[in-house]
Amino acid sequence: MTKGGELTLVAGGAGFIGSHLCRALLKKGRNVLCLDNLQTARRENLLELEAYERFRFIESDITRPLPRQVLEQTGRITRIYNLACAASPDLYQADPEHTILTCVMGTNRLLHLAEDSGARFLLTSTSEVYGDPHVHPQPESYRGNVSCTGPRACYDEGKRAAETMAFDFARGGRADVRVARIFNTYGPNMRMDDGRVISNFICQALAGKPLTIYGNGEQTRSFCYVSDTVDGLLRLMESEDGDLGPVNIGNPSELTIAELIETLETVMGMRLAKVSRPLPIDDPKKRRPDIERATARLGWCPRTPLASGLAATVAWFERELRSNRTPTPERSPAVAAVGRQQAL
Amino acid sequence: MTKGGELTLVAGGAGFIGSHLCRALLKKGRNVLCLDNLQTARRENLLELEAYERFRFIESDITRPLPRQVLEQTGRITRIYNLACAASPDLYQADPEHTILTCVMGTNRLLHLAEDSGARFLLTSTSEVYGDPHVHPQPESYRGNVSCTGPRACYDEGKRAAETMAFDFARGGRADVRVARIFNTYGPNMRMDDGRVISNFICQALAGKPLTIYGNGEQTRSFCYVSDTVDGLLRLMESEDGDLGPVNIGNPSELTIAELIETLETVMGMRLAKVSRPLPIDDPKKRRPDIERATARLGWCPRTPLASGLAATVAWFERELRSNRTPTPERSPAVAAVGRQQAL
Repeated sequence: MTKGGELTLVAGGAGFIGSHLCRALLKKGRNVLCLDNLQTARRENLLELEAYERFRFIESDITRPLPRQVLEQTGRITRIYNLACAASPDLYQADPEHTILTCVMGTNRLLHLAEDSGARFLLTSTSEVYGDPHVHPQPESYRGNVSCTGPRACYDEGKRAAETMAFDFARGGRADVRVARIFNTYGPNMRMDDGRVISNFICQALAGKPLTIYGNGEQTRSFCYVSDTVDGLLRLMESEDGDLGPVNIGNPSELTIAELIETLETVMGMRLAKVSRPLPIDDPKKRRPDIERATARLGWCPRTPLASGLAATVAWFERELRSNRTPTPERSPAVAAVGRQQAL
Repeated sequence: MTKGGELTLVAGGAGFIGSHLCRALLKKGRNVLCLDNLQTARRENLLELEAYERFRFIESDITRPLPRQVLEQTGRITRIYNLACAASPDLYQADPEHTILTCVMGTNRLLHLAEDSGARFLLTSTSEVYGDPHVHPQPESYRGNVSCTGPRACYDEGKRAAETMAFDFARGGRADVRVARIFNTYGPNMRMDDGRVISNFICQALAGKPLTIYGNGEQTRSFCYVSDTVDGLLRLMESEDGDLGPVNIGNPSELTIAELIETLETVMGMRLAKVSRPLPIDDPKKRRPDIERATARLGWCPRTPLASGLAATVAWFERELRSNRTPTPERSPAVAAVGRQQAL
């Protein structure tokens, strides 16, 4: 990292979306300070970023006090992105206390840093704040249908409380804050073992195994390619409109699991075998963003067609599997995830 | 406090409900260790308690590490009640960051103490977890309608996140937890200046001023006398059924503000003047507990008729006013509260 000059801090910058965000910032010429506890991040995500002189990585867990090397940079920090938290159910439920503390205490620490540095702060919240919604699609004004006592609550309520804290800092004039509610995102740098439907399918397809379909495959999902998500985050952060409230960032085009498989078959140029399993009890019902706010206020909408995004993702998974360095369901202790749950 | 023997810790024990709980525990022969930061508690609440040799008070804020004097007692602590948090909107919104940290970090610290001591833990949550409910009355299974971005969220979402953490400790076998969702409670030891309708009315009546009615007085409320609430907390804590989930503790009998005033007039033996004000935009809509769970599983229901509870409360307020030691709307900086908001 070069000495002097403005600095962008990205917490969770070694993770799936975080690593794409760091790269986009570096390509814009920013100095990037990346914090990550490497709990669910892929170390490999850092390799490409560390080629930039303007990039610096510090292994750090934001549930703990920020390291001295960060506090020393307070005067230079002008932007803080908080993407730190395990985001797939199997991973965030493994240590629920750590998950909720990451959301609440982590966000609190970074908000204090934003207050001290005068930096603008962006929280990546989640569509999970809507829980199992009764309203479709979900506008930002929808208050959600979240169980605060169940096993998913450590993430859902953690993010809700993080939003609360961010908006209280804004109301109190302590920090300029932005809150993105990110919906299902896919692309290169995903973990193969995080139990999400796209990584599960690609992984199964590349291993020559049948794709596991839960229920009749008619349940719907919507998927946003990661470069579109990152574009949304950058626009939200740089918007001079500081009074946006939370902003949904996701792809509103809804498709069934059966349609997803058809597109994957087209992209891979082969018919894929399928195996049916009963729908899990807690399988998420459909969730789809209303993105009118992002469109009207940020000029943002997803631009990557599913086929293009899937092609890039399949190509990346193929390279990763050949390199033999990424955990796969066969090599990872989180293998159970793939069979148990297709989470969004 | 006597040396040796089992110990009950009550965080927030100098507050309105907390002080009644401490007294009930002392009357049952328990040793009570009371923590309170005295932020919204009345110091006078402690006077009566300090007459008991088995009572000890430590001024302490649970957002900070627990004091040594508490940790030294870990081996003796068998019950932990967490009642710590400002509970009236004007007071909890004064420092929203402190409010949410009290709920989340405070509960986290006390849960760790419960884990270390093997103590049973009871969280006092709130009807506010239901927000502005679409379901009447509210059973515990109702997920609520809470804005996580508004000015009340520091309390509502703080308590929701505290519940989440408590149930995660229970699921993980780390602590035996109980969660009470307390609805509107009234009685002696309330602050006159906390902006609640019963304290406002009694205070105005005793000062010979007209009662402020917002809107047409047809909005409904339900009120539980504090001894009934405390009885519910004790039953919940001592129930051997550790798998109850959250339990509503409140009075399901619903009455209009106009009916409340009629009862107050009967109790005070006089006609009271009224003045009308427009209904505030954020005035809570009706909220009423479904107490089937508490009734069936704890054998609990409220037993104090409104007239008796109001008579005891009026008598207490009269004594307090004569003693000139309690803040009144005329003497307190929170005077604005009374005019601004009649909160539940």
